Amino acid sequence: MGRLTQRRRVLTLRADGTRSKGDLLAVEEPLELRLAGESFTVTMRTPGHDFELVAGFLVAEGIISAQEHLRSLRYCAGTDEQGNQTYNVIDAELDPALPPTSLLRTRNVLTTSACGICGTTSIDAVEKTLPAHPTDTLRMHPQTLLQLPERMRESQTLFSKTGGVHAAGLFDAAGELLCLREDVGRHNAVDKVVGWALTQGRLPLAGTVLQVSGRASFELVQKAALAGIEMLSAVGAPSSLAVDLAERSGLSLAGFSRGRSINLYTHFQRIEREDEDS
Amino acid sequence: MGRLTQRRRVLTLRADGTRSKGDLLAVEEPLELRLAGESFTVTMRTPGHDFELVAGFLVAEGIISAQEHLRSLRYCAGTDEQGNQTYNVIDAELDPALPPTSLLRTRNVLTTSACGICGTTSIDAVEKTLPAHPTDTLRMHPQTLLQLPERMRESQTLFSKTGGVHAAGLFDAAGELLCLREDVGRHNAVDKVVGWALTQGRLPLAGTVLQVSGRASFELVQKAALAGIEMLSAVGAPSSLAVDLAERSGLSLAGFSRGRSINLYTHFQRIEREDEDS
Repeated sequence: MGRLTQRRRVLTLRADGTRSKGDLLAVEEPLELRLAGESFTVTMRTPGHDFELVAGFLVAEGIISAQEHLRSLRYCAGTDEQGNQTYNVIDAELDPALPPTSLLRTRNVLTTSACGICGTTSIDAVEKTLPAHPTDTLRMHPQTLLQLPERMRESQTLFSKTGGVHAAGLFDAAGELLCLREDVGRHNAVDKVVGWALTQGRLPLAGTVLQVSGRASFELVQKAALAGIEMLSAVGAPSSLAVDLAERSGLSLAGFSRGRSINLYTHFQRIEREDEDS
Repeated sequence: MGRLTQRRRVLTLRADGTRSKGDLLAVEEPLELRLAGESFTVTMRTPGHDFELVAGFLVAEGIISAQEHLRSLRYCAGTDEQGNQTYNVIDAELDPALPPTSLLRTRNVLTTSACGICGTTSIDAVEKTLPAHPTDTLRMHPQTLLQLPERMRESQTLFSKTGGVHAAGLFDAAGELLCLREDVGRHNAVDKVVGWALTQGRLPLAGTVLQVSGRASFELVQKAALAGIEMLSAVGAPSSLAVDLAERSGLSLAGFSRGRSINLYTHFQRIEREDEDS
């Protein structure tokens, strides 16, 4: 876990005095993505599952949608001040048959640890990336949905150590965890899950629900819908635009998932309910 | 408050049944920034204090650093499907004497509601934006620092209504609130505070501490330091890179500010302590 956490000296202040101790921090480092050798974007991320992060990012950008679009991924030589390989630069080789326009759209972008849909310069372009509707095969018991945050927490090893990372967990209709990823950036965690699915040949992710640890923004809804995920469940609140996009793109959106209760905002049909007061 | 919140129908699931109710969501809308009429960036944000958001964003990008660098800001004509003015496009006119290279660096960027330092394509360029050291005049009593999240919460009207927005509050050494801004994006909230300071002619913000509602990432430390803020205090955890940058840029960084205790990571001298076990 050397590169996922970093030990630092911390001074803790309390009413009864000051204590100096060691503390584990979640590592945040830049990752530079190059396409065919040319610098394309930099994202701040927690190291680990970097190839999945890149693959998922390219899916979210609408650049690739299947495993065969990604010819190869490799770490480039990149060294720190001590001359050690940093593993912070990745070169991706795409299928040359892919349309080049999609690449130009997102050139010269720096994404941050919390950033997902960088690459365009007008409001119209944001809306253009609207995905096709996901399938409508998922049917889930409410109790199963309510338990997802707790099930995810059990596997969040990095959060347990640092208290400072987000998580995204992909579940099936029975509440079985298919893939969990953690990152300082909540968008990165989702990209890693989607990238995992791409490299497993599992896109689109029909019949699945994605649980996230934070709030539900426009970009997270977009990422989920682009991957064919049927439901997005957030521990926090959704924004107005997240609800709008979920409504339009056929995604079931849930928020404020707090163990005992949860709010449903769109496409309620995927939750099995006895009382149909819709 | 029409454009800050939006009422939606929500279905709440509990173990004891389902309830349909109205709920207030925090509004998230795109804002397009144009420089001299040319599209420059799009950010997802909560409407309100848009001019401050743009001003603060331009400070964080290193494009401007004083009020006189910003000639004018105005809303452009932008209409929705019903033909209503959206107030989602702003044109900024900068001092023509500013170096044009800084503009080129960040062209063609779409930032998200959680995104702060977009605009470069290599890791070196991220580091180049390192700010000068802030002043070292702030001296704060630990008890005052511990109370900042609660003082901020008292003024978070949008959070009270929606539970779905971040906040940034600027305080002086006595714990007096100078400026509070809320936004679905935590970086936007900080940009709005810095933009407020710029339009008030108060940059650099010597002698101040910035309290934020979320975690402390690399970008938030960078924004604070660029504005000359002396201390950044976060309710959540800092990342490793946030601590590294705070250390190098002379900023005091605090995290896990939870009312009864707080962790200090860098430059402890600004906290008045009786027990000097540093």
